[in-house]
Amino acid sequence: MKEAVIVGGSGYVGGELLRLLLRHPEIRVVQVTSDSQAGRPVGRSHPNLRRATDLTFVPLAERRPADLTFFATPHGESMGLVPPVLDAGGIAIDLSADFRLKDPSLYPTYYGRAHPRPDLLREAVYGLPELHREALRSARLIAVPGCIATASTLALAPVVRAGLSADRPVVIDAKSGSSASGRDAGPAGAHAERSNVMRAYAPTGHRHTAEIEQETGATVALSCHSVEPVRGVLATCHVSTSAPVPIRDLWRIYRSAYASEPFVRVVHENDGLYREPEPRLLTGTNYCDVGFASDDHLPRVVALGAIDNLVKGAAGNAVQSVNARCGWPETTALDALGLHPL
Amino acid sequence: MKEAVIVGGSGYVGGELLRLLLRHPEIRVVQVTSDSQAGRPVGRSHPNLRRATDLTFVPLAERRPADLTFFATPHGESMGLVPPVLDAGGIAIDLSADFRLKDPSLYPTYYGRAHPRPDLLREAVYGLPELHREALRSARLIAVPGCIATASTLALAPVVRAGLSADRPVVIDAKSGSSASGRDAGPAGAHAERSNVMRAYAPTGHRHTAEIEQETGATVALSCHSVEPVRGVLATCHVSTSAPVPIRDLWRIYRSAYASEPFVRVVHENDGLYREPEPRLLTGTNYCDVGFASDDHLPRVVALGAIDNLVKGAAGNAVQSVNARCGWPETTALDALGLHPL
Amino acid sequence: MKEAVIVGGSGYVGGELLRLLLRHPEIRVVQVTSDSQAGRPVGRSHPNLRRATDLTFVPLAERRPADLTFFATPHGESMGLVPPVLDAGGIAIDLSADFRLKDPSLYPTYYGRAHPRPDLLREAVYGLPELHREALRSARLIAVPGCIATASTLALAPVVRAGLSADRPVVIDAKSGSSASGRDAGPAGAHAERSNVMRAYAPTGHRHTAEIEQETGATVALSCHSVEPVRGVLATCHVSTSAPVPIRDLWRIYRSAYASEPFVRVVHENDGLYREPEPRLLTGTNYCDVGFASDDHLPRVVALGAIDNLVKGAAGNAVQSVNARCGWPETTALDALGLHPL
Amino acid sequence: MKEAVIVGGSGYVGGELLRLLLRHPEIRVVQVTSDSQAGRPVGRSHPNLRRATDLTFVPLAERRPADLTFFATPHGESMGLVPPVLDAGGIAIDLSADFRLKDPSLYPTYYGRAHPRPDLLREAVYGLPELHREALRSARLIAVPGCIATASTLALAPVVRAGLSADRPVVIDAKSGSSASGRDAGPAGAHAERSNVMRAYAPTGHRHTAEIEQETGATVALSCHSVEPVRGVLATCHVSTSAPVPIRDLWRIYRSAYASEPFVRVVHENDGLYREPEPRLLTGTNYCDVGFASDDHLPRVVALGAIDNLVKGAAGNAVQSVNARCGWPETTALDALGLHPL
Repeated sequence: MKEAVIVGGSGYVGGELLRLLLRHPEIRVVQVTSDSQAGRPVGRSHPNLRRATDLTFVPLAERRPADLTFFATPHGESMGLVPPVLDAGGIAIDLSADFRLKDPSLYPTYYGRAHPRPDLLREAVYGLPELHREALRSARLIAVPGCIATASTLALAPVVRAGLSADRPVVIDAKSGSSASGRDAGPAGAHAERSNVMRAYAPTGHRHTAEIEQETGATVALSCHSVEPVRGVLATCHVSTSAPVPIRDLWRIYRSAYASEPFVRVVHENDGLYREPEPRLLTGTNYCDVGFASDDHLPRVVALGAIDNLVKGAAGNAVQSVNARCGWPETTALDALGLHPL
Repeated sequence: MKEAVIVGGSGYVGGELLRLLLRHPEIRVVQVTSDSQAGRPVGRSHPNLRRATDLTFVPLAERRPADLTFFATPHGESMGLVPPVLDAGGIAIDLSADFRLKDPSLYPTYYGRAHPRPDLLREAVYGLPELHREALRSARLIAVPGCIATASTLALAPVVRAGLSADRPVVIDAKSGSSASGRDAGPAGAHAERSNVMRAYAPTGHRHTAEIEQETGATVALSCHSVEPVRGVLATCHVSTSAPVPIRDLWRIYRSAYASEPFVRVVHENDGLYREPEPRLLTGTNYCDVGFASDDHLPRVVALGAIDNLVKGAAGNAVQSVNARCGWPETTALDALGLHPL
Repeated sequence: MKEAVIVGGSGYVGGELLRLLLRHPEIRVVQVTSDSQAGRPVGRSHPNLRRATDLTFVPLAERRPADLTFFATPHGESMGLVPPVLDAGGIAIDLSADFRLKDPSLYPTYYGRAHPRPDLLREAVYGLPELHREALRSARLIAVPGCIATASTLALAPVVRAGLSADRPVVIDAKSGSSASGRDAGPAGAHAERSNVMRAYAPTGHRHTAEIEQETGATVALSCHSVEPVRGVLATCHVSTSAPVPIRDLWRIYRSAYASEPFVRVVHENDGLYREPEPRLLTGTNYCDVGFASDDHLPRVVALGAIDNLVKGAAGNAVQSVNARCGWPETTALDALGLHPL
Repeated sequence: MKEAVIVGGSGYVGGELLRLLLRHPEIRVVQVTSDSQAGRPVGRSHPNLRRATDLTFVPLAERRPADLTFFATPHGESMGLVPPVLDAGGIAIDLSADFRLKDPSLYPTYYGRAHPRPDLLREAVYGLPELHREALRSARLIAVPGCIATASTLALAPVVRAGLSADRPVVIDAKSGSSASGRDAGPAGAHAERSNVMRAYAPTGHRHTAEIEQETGATVALSCHSVEPVRGVLATCHVSTSAPVPIRDLWRIYRSAYASEPFVRVVHENDGLYREPEPRLLTGTNYCDVGFASDDHLPRVVALGAIDNLVKGAAGNAVQSVNARCGWPETTALDALGLHPL
């Protein structure tokens, strides 16, 4: 049994971590920090956890060492908090962007500041078990991907790796739900302003561009949209190919890429209501459903990736990475089935 | 390990039963019937269960005897199907209304036909473990309550039992989500017609009136509304009292009623966003959250009950009842925590 | 042509006033005040009005006298601002609660402070033309009703006036959309927290109780709920009657009450999807649809009232009242038809 | 005053036509046909029009000649119905796809049948006044564009016309609301299945590809998604450019393209919640808001077009085209302002 601390536990990602870890047979959460909520029961911030735990938030200053320290903090905060954890022999799992990019020069561009510890960028393992399973087994520092990056990378990687992509940027049009903006979404996140939107909140310039390019090797033109639901990300990846791609080739490519993955399902059906990956089916689960289409009109493949942004796009992916790290079955505490209808 | 058959498994309640039973350590689902979907994988109707099961639907005519036979059939169908199950020594769990009412004379009024087996009405145990736990332990036939009845009865029963209700009808104003209309909701259930509604679909005359009166002993004036979400029931029960009721008395009454119940939580907080029971926090779970308020203006108590209509309001309650029947911990296969936000 | 000023114009009610008045052939809006938005174009706060007006917000301190001064201010602010308007010979239309209640003793109870001008409470005319048309024709001060009060009063008044109500409180269970909480709804109004709710935000103690009792003469037990959509109020009024009420009597009562009303429609159909009043059909319009049902089970009438909370529940009702005051057709600037589907 | 007939008036587009034409000062609707609803009041299908009209549906066979005949029929039906209208000297306005494409060879590809009247394809004027105003002034047959084509074409045309597009396909990622599927959306359109989706219903192969290519001259890779709201289309057009495009150039291009257009607004703000075109602001209006972004990362322009699919995407565009045809101000009956919030 390993002891875990969640730093920055009052937000949505922190809440999901707690939900998953409270049912994890090998992990015991011993502390959840939040300066703003210190002293209050965690169930006040996470009312779904009422009666499931007696934990109360503690101030960050009272944090104790643990086997596993999860950081569900805003970007920029874990940069300083992670090093002492590693120095003390702990394992750090960072759900912010602070250790995701290998190239330090990208931090000023995308996050507005130089990175203080390029050495740790080199050491950090990008927490996507489908791509970095081996490295995760001995990682001290796990950098859990962003939600749009996760859906995009898992959808796109097989196509790029198969050499299908022509020498042109891949256009990724991402749609995400409101919980992706976090608990403090401000005026733009008020229900009366955020409901029913199809909002191009980042038609260019989204930070996850760098992650996707790093992990897939493709050049990426990413545009991000907010749509209605509370949870979910759908990444629609438009890949120009040098020649038309038969659909059976896509089947083969995706099946071979993900045949043994516990959380990636290849979805491409000929009929029914759910022929393509659909995020709402994945709510609360750690699945990433990937799918594809081949265009008759132009040499083009459309690759689709769907996830729950708070689970496979954050907390669940973190738990899966820790499971890989600690030698437990990757599905431990992650075997929930989706809900339908929802 | 007991074997189970689900009759009428292509609807939403059947899908939830399957979702729960696939994770039940003591039950193995051996058949799911659906005449309309016979031969197709169950994942086609329940896309959330992709990869989780290899079952395909079988026609009703091919149903085999089993230890446990669940009926997720439209009202009127299980009346004829249950008796042979019992005759063969099986346990029948009926999620339709066919065996819920003790008084046969109510069937013509509320369901438009005489009941063919009044003897089985007497024998059937109403599947609400909070009220009928002892009888469930030896039941052959379990009649699982309707969703609005479950939320209303659990909210109301403690107040009525405490003798607080003046000699007047209790007004219950129920709100429910779209999945309560089932998979074949027709034109009124089309997204463009059903979205954003506050629809008084049964301002009077709702069938669950009879169940609630039977189970609580109160006279009930029930009005039912459709509101936006896909899942959830909130029952707001307006109880006239003979004198003002101090809030501490309500606390005492509810706490003592439900102190040892695994799935009923008493929710009444002084601040925060979730001061009262809220169905969306319970999505996918078997909880019923109950709450209350006492009016300063008039002698009146407002009792609130919230559930997920497909879980505690149907499939989860059925599983809990079966757990009670079979001597397993009632929480078996029902320990999911809710999701927040959703 | 009359000149109008809107005080407190950056909120939702202010925006609706502006939307309606910009199309009013007899009124010219000369100023819109907002201290927080002073100097910015009104289209920034009300993006639906882009290109429709060149107005910019001015600070309250720069307000000029006008024929008509509309107050779309938070409760408590117009108390002090209205008297100088009247003294200067203007007409004040107050959309806050500050002048709605005739009985000054209710202000401490419901609004936490004594009212400084009981004389003006006596003079103010409650801005519901259906009940106070004659008085409005010469009003100096119009107190526009609250949204829940409007829907409830128009639904309930005919039944009470007809003497059908037994000597018992009327239970009103109201449902309202998120715009009713205003633009600054705080954390409880964040999309991820407010979506999909069935939230009993005021099971007892809602302020509009006093308005409805004042206007109908009934004793009222009011419970208020938040449901999904952005706009709309549905008031379900449960009226105990001394004897069963034939449905034809209800038809007669409602038809005679509202036969000549331009904005009240009696809706009670035998089939179709919209048999009862449904707020979403009324979005953007000044209609109040009222309906009814008679219970077979108990002597009870259910009266239903539906409105758009920002139009008939606020800005539209204000414009209708001003039309009555100024002798213009009441439908002036209010003839929009609803949208379907929505 | 011209007389109008609406053929196929029981669907959503027919309902919107009726809503707009009932307020048109120069047009009188004399008949609305619907075989399935013949004999019933139009308010039964379009409950928003209750009390606004006494029209009842008539069977198609009873249609009479009129000055203006609008076809709101399923694809394939007006092909045969339009010619006699023209022969009788009437003006036909077709809201289906039957006369939109100039190249007859595209009909077998996209609509599965040869076109019987290629001569009328040549004659028909594509009903987008922004591109074909002059031709509309003398048109006998107006082919009103599809909703996704309208939003895409208006967003894209200025960029293409300015020669900015590199010699590569334009990727268009379109999002649309549920009313775009029409009143008979089938099982996929049930509320419990359609809510909260991000559904790639046509990742390739969408029919509007042909319209957009015809009207813009660009090669188009179109992918279409269903998202939550009932109304609205957002077209995100990803245009590869040969060099980075300064934002001031885009401002100039769009402003000069649309400076004198009554219904196209260029939206590109530096702050606020509505920096880019947002369909929900346009609900019920005939506006198309267009916007743009220029990528720093790659030579790329993102062009955005937002509309209400039933208004500017169908019925409103038809009315605007008729206004142009008949020499009335184009804004006649189309001056509604949007609603906010919604």
